[in-house]
Parts: sequence; structure tokens; C-alpha cells
Amino acid sequence: VTPRYDTITFLSDFGADDEFVGVVKAVLRGLAPHATVLDLTHGIPPFDMRAGGLALARAAQYLPSGVVLAVVDPGVGTDRRGVAVEVAEGELVFIGPDNGLLAGAVAMMGGAERAVAITNPDLQLVAPGATFAARDVFAPAAAHLAIGGSLDDLGPVIDIFTLLPGVLPVAERKGDDLETEVLWVDRFGNAQLNVGLDDLAGMGELFALRFHETVRTARLATTYGAIGGSVGLVVDSYGLVSVCLDRQSAAGELGLDVGDRVMVQPAGDPKSSVPVTMRLGPR
Amino acid sequence: VTPRYDTITFLSDFGADDEFVGVVKAVLRGLAPHATVLDLTHGIPPFDMRAGGLALARAAQYLPSGVVLAVVDPGVGTDRRGVAVEVAEGELVFIGPDNGLLAGAVAMMGGAERAVAITNPDLQLVAPGATFAARDVFAPAAAHLAIGGSLDDLGPVIDIFTLLPGVLPVAERKGDDLETEVLWVDRFGNAQLNVGLDDLAGMGELFALRFHETVRTARLATTYGAIGGSVGLVVDSYGLVSVCLDRQSAAGELGLDVGDRVMVQPAGDPKSSVPVTMRLGPR
Amino acid sequence: VTPRYDTITFLSDFGADDEFVGVVKAVLRGLAPHATVLDLTHGIPPFDMRAGGLALARAAQYLPSGVVLAVVDPGVGTDRRGVAVEVAEGELVFIGPDNGLLAGAVAMMGGAERAVAITNPDLQLVAPGATFAARDVFAPAAAHLAIGGSLDDLGPVIDIFTLLPGVLPVAERKGDDLETEVLWVDRFGNAQLNVGLDDLAGMGELFALRFHETVRTARLATTYGAIGGSVGLVVDSYGLVSVCLDRQSAAGELGLDVGDRVMVQPAGDPKSSVPVTMRLGPR
Repeated sequence: VTPRYDTITFLSDFGADDEFVGVVKAVLRGLAPHATVLDLTHGIPPFDMRAGGLALARAAQYLPSGVVLAVVDPGVGTDRRGVAVEVAEGELVFIGPDNGLLAGAVAMMGGAERAVAITNPDLQLVAPGATFAARDVFAPAAAHLAIGGSLDDLGPVIDIFTLLPGVLPVAERKGDDLETEVLWVDRFGNAQLNVGLDDLAGMGELFALRFHETVRTARLATTYGAIGGSVGLVVDSYGLVSVCLDRQSAAGELGLDVGDRVMVQPAGDPKSSVPVTMRLGPR
Repeated sequence: VTPRYDTITFLSDFGADDEFVGVVKAVLRGLAPHATVLDLTHGIPPFDMRAGGLALARAAQYLPSGVVLAVVDPGVGTDRRGVAVEVAEGELVFIGPDNGLLAGAVAMMGGAERAVAITNPDLQLVAPGATFAARDVFAPAAAHLAIGGSLDDLGPVIDIFTLLPGVLPVAERKGDDLETEVLWVDRFGNAQLNVGLDDLAGMGELFALRFHETVRTARLATTYGAIGGSVGLVVDSYGLVSVCLDRQSAAGELGLDVGDRVMVQPAGDPKSSVPVTMRLGPR
Repeated sequence: VTPRYDTITFLSDFGADDEFVGVVKAVLRGLAPHATVLDLTHGIPPFDMRAGGLALARAAQYLPSGVVLAVVDPGVGTDRRGVAVEVAEGELVFIGPDNGLLAGAVAMMGGAERAVAITNPDLQLVAPGATFAARDVFAPAAAHLAIGGSLDDLGPVIDIFTLLPGVLPVAERKGDDLETEVLWVDRFGNAQLNVGLDDLAGMGELFALRFHETVRTARLATTYGAIGGSVGLVVDSYGLVSVCLDRQSAAGELGLDVGDRVMVQPAGDPKSSVPVTMRLGPR
């Protein structure tokens, strides 16, 4: 066999405080020394498969050809399957738990073409406990593919239609208004909504955002710098609309968090003509 | 000389906020451009040689052949020695301060075979202050070995029996009970105890954990998912028993921290037959 | 063209929680697969161009030959320029926003020799929004140079005297005293002042530090370990004087933060002869 993939991209919820990431990379280095490991992020909140799946999906189109190791795996060691999923004619192979984590990225890349369950004990490390599949199961599988081993060696082929889907909230139109949800709050406090610019077509440039017990006026802007002192709706680098402030955390200032509902209304709407913040309910 | 090691594994308490790690890697890149740097972790709590030593020891058996640069070094610049320690017939060379940090990992790999004090000023960077030995002393030493330089160039051979040992707490049997200590709390809140499954042999499947002023019932489980709603004792990937919850931080929920004593008792013990939490003392 | 640079050093305020850093590295890997990416740090506080510029300047002299991608860019997408700046006869090329971030490092390396504005759309990724120039503009430019492309391809040559300077506070002598400012608080809580040992010449070994409403006595020391139980002034690895404690955070204990003024006085000064802490004002 000749090496097939020279990049192993790695995402997890392992954080930076423990040596988990380093040990997985040590195993990869031992088994596939020619491969470069590209850390996508290890800052996914613990156990948060949805956040991990969204980060992976956002990154998917930019990933170099190779193996993608993705591990957010609260069910580690149970009978949840470990899988390897080929997409884009083998340009990318995703490896991880079959818990929905991979679904968004796989879909972004055109869908699964071939998949196996990772079960072959000969391609796993022996360990005293079953709690670190990234080290003992997934990393050896990724290395096996990187050095030119076959997908079929990892375990039995599985029906791609049995792969667990990810579930994403869809924005809902309610009359003139759009009920959205915060998908992601990034380090800078931008709160990404599950709508694109198209979804706001015909609604004007000025909007009222209703969330919690608050109304805020927001203006469409193409850059953070153009927002000025008010709240902005900026089309972000993924084409989705984010609630933003200039050089401040919008999520922090407005109290927005992942999963919050935000009702987006044209600012002509009488219910939202108030240009400043007001509280509608008791504190 | 021809390159000897193509991996330099790097652990420290430098964190991610400053450029310390990056500058050390810049020095390594300049002096040993062929080598890949594998970051084990830089999230060791500041000055915490015990935590650093444990992380290094847990990782040791997985490390690829190469130089291992480990720096948790509150005594930097004082007369504490810098050392390079060969193990496993030269498969690995540990470099760092001789303050106990390396001891556990060196022991895991079969013990020191050869060691030198790092004193040769010709293999060090000149700097205006003595506070950054990782950059000025240890990284150049690691690079020197990686490119094929000799261990003896670094400084005088030292007696391996003078290397500072690490100290680990040993669990103590007190009658039917086992007095344990929390060695490590990981990102997921699992609290690793200093006992293996063997130590619990003959004590049944159900245990009472006594710590602080609390008693909690805990059940042996092989996976986090199998714990259910109660507290679990899970044999972790290193063979040690951890106090765990399913998809929650056990350390956070139970108020456990590194160094805490946990008395493990068979649950048949009358003192621990209470199935729910109770507080034994005043709050 | 043949590859010209095999290292791309990368600094940003992107943090570790999102996949921003990983996506930029994915783009670099796709466009310049031969290059190694060296992460200097991504822990610069969000939007903090001064902190980013200082970190870059501290690291500059240690950087291996290559492209340096530096992104702290609150003005992303506005008309602030993106630039590529050659220094040291092309040993290093800095790429980033022209907002002062690069200025200190460029000066450290002898000053700009050639610079272009990065404007060529053919060397940029197409994206739905303008908020991620690191991915869409700067990374492709860095990769272009790494693989041997010409600086001139990136856009028009600009006058190096139009590059935005960085601004650093200069310590001021007021009679016998020196008014300094905290430039940097590192992970260990050392508070770096904007003075070197030369600036303290003739002032003795014992100092009074006046800040906020407090006076503390501090002693010159060459290592943290030599400080003992008091406050130390240690010449750090960059030649600047830092306020330090042994194995404790001086900034945390003394309440010092970046930007704070610290008046440094010879301890013979009657105003500062008090050897213990006292508060001069009401709490």
C-alpha cells in the first residue's frame, strides 16, 4: 500500500486543558507518520453534538482532501456505532460516532457514498477501559486509511440510509415576521441566525428583533464597522445573518445564547417602531 | 550528523493566551526544521508540576519515538537542574527541569538509562533575562538531539539515581474501606481516583463514596452511558477508576477536586446504606 | 514557480472555541500543502490590536524565515487596507490588516522594505459575506507567497511610509521617579512594565511601586525563585522589568492590569519608605 491521504483533520470536544488531543495525535503520528494533523477545533462544548456538527458543516467546503476525525461522543463505549463515511468520490472520509455529528458536513459535501461500521478489533488499540474511543478506535482507523488501507478492512459495509441524521431548526414565517433561532455565538459575540439574506428579501433594511422580553431595532450592514452604535444584521462569511455589534459582543450585550428564538420583523411593523430598547414584561 | 528524531512532543503550563508556546516552536523550527512538533497539552495549571507529571505519565506509552520537551518550571533560572533523560534504548529522550515533572513518565517507560545536566552555553540562546528556559535552554537542547547531536554535548553525565522522583499518593485500605484520592478531574468532570478495578475486587458492584460531609451511592459501570441517573464508578482508559455522571460533570455536581480524599466502601456497609445524598454535617 | 517559504506563522484573536483557526489552516493546506503552519497564539483578546502587536513584536526575532499571517481585524470588510510587508531582505513577509498590528514586529525586524496592498480578487476566495478576510483574503495571499508567487501579484505597491504605525507608551521620568505602564500580564500573572533594567540604573535594588491607591515595596531579582515572599522586579526574557511574585500571580494579588500606571521610586524616597502595604485612600 502507498499512503493515500496526507491530511487528517481533527475536531473534538476535548478542550485544551487535558492531554486528550495530544494523545490522539501521538497515536496518529505513530501509525501514520507521513500525515499532517490539522486541528479544526477542540473547543466544542462538552457533549454538544449539535455545536460540533455545525462547526464541521461550516468548515466542510474548505477541508483539504483527507480523513476527517470528528469526536463528540457522550455515548462512547455503548452500542452506538463508530462509522467511516466516504464522500465526494473518496476525497474525504469522515470518521466518528454515528450520532448525528457528521451528518451536516456529509450533506454539505454531497452526501454519503459509502460507509462502514468500525468494528475490526485488529485495527484498534487494546485498553483497560472503553472510554477513549478517539485514541483506541477512531485514530487507528483514520491512520489505517491515511496509509492506504482499505475502508472495507475497518468493518462491515452499512446502508448509508441508516446513518443518523442531524436535526437543524428551520426558520418559520409567521405573517410578515420570521421566527429564527440562534445557531451559534462566536468568540466575538456575533449571534448567527438560521436565515440567509434571501429570507429577509422584501422586508426592508431596518428590522425589529424581538427576543426574551425585549425589542431591539437592527439595521442590515455588510461589515461590523458599518454598524455604528446600533445593532446590526450582518451577512456573515457563511451567508447567514448574524446579530452583531461593532467591536462589542452582541450576544453578551443583548443576552442572546445558542437556541434562543429571535423574531425578525420589518421595522415598519407598528409593534416594532420603537427605535430604542424597551422591556415588554416585568424584569 | 543525520537527523535522529523527527518528532518533538511538547507539554507545558504555558496556556494558549500568550505566545510562549509559539515562540518555543519558532525556535524549534529554526534549529530543527525537519521535526514535527506534537503538542501534548499546554493547559497544565500554572506551576502545577504534579498535574504536569501525571499528564505526561498517562501519555507516555502512546508517544512516538522522539524528544519530549516538558516544561512546568516555577524554579526557572535558579539552581534547579535542567536535564535530558534517555529511556527505552534511546527511543525517547525527556528534556525539562529536574523537579519531579519527568519522573512518572520516565518510570512508565522503564526508567532512566542515561541522563545529562543541560549546561553547555554554546547550545543555548543568549537572552537578557533567565525566565524563559523553554525558549533559551530546553528548545535548543531538544533541537540539538533531533538533528542528530549527541546527548553528551548538552552537559555532564549525571547519576540517574539523583534525578528528583515524583510523589504519588497511594490508596490505603482501612478495614473494609479504601481511602482514595482524586488524581485528576478532566474536562468532562470525571474524577479519576488512585485505584484500579483490582483494588475494588471482592467489594461488590455497589459502593458508598464518602467525601467532604457527603455520602453518595455509586455503581460500577463500563461506560458513561450505562451509568443512568446515578453516580458511576467507571474504569477509564488508563485502567483507573473514575467517579462519573452520564453527560454531566461529576466533579462539578459533587464538588470534587484534585487532591480530595474519597472513602470507597462496599455499599453493604451499614454506614453507607443510604441510597440518596445526605449531608452529615452542618452546611 | 518553486516553493519559496515553508513556514507560515499565524497569530490571531480567533481563540480556540470556534473553528476559525482551523478553517484558515485548511485553506492554507489546500493552497500551499508543503508549508508548515506555526501557531504563534490565537489567544489575543478580541479586537485588541495593541496586545496582538506586542505579542508579535516580542516573538519577531525568533520567527523562522517565512510568511507571517497576523489577524486582529475589527475593521474587516471596511476600507482599511490589507497589506503584505517585506522585511529583512525577504526573509519574512508580514500579512494582515494595516491597522498598526504589524508595526512593532516590522520595526523589530529593521523596518519595512517593500509593501503592497492586497487587492487582487483573483487571489481571493469568493464568499457570501465580507467578515472573514483571514480565510478569504489573507490566507490565500500567504499561500501565494509560500508557493513562490510574487508579492506584486497581490496588488499595487504602496509607500511604506503610509503604513499605520503602532503606538507604545513611553515611561516618563518625573524627578527621581519613573512613571511606567503595564504592557502585558502573562498567564503566570507577571506584569511587564515598559522599562528595562537600564532605566532603573542608579535607583538601587529596592523600590517602591505606587499604583491605584497602594504602595508596595519591591526588590530587584534575577529569578522568580529568588523573590521570596515579597514583590519582585524581575528582568524578563525580553529584557523588560516585570512585577512578579514567586509561584503566584502578581497581577492577581496586586490588582494590576494592562494599561495601569505604576510609579517606580527608589525605596530611599521618604514617600515610599513603608515596607508593607498600606492604602493611601478610602476603599
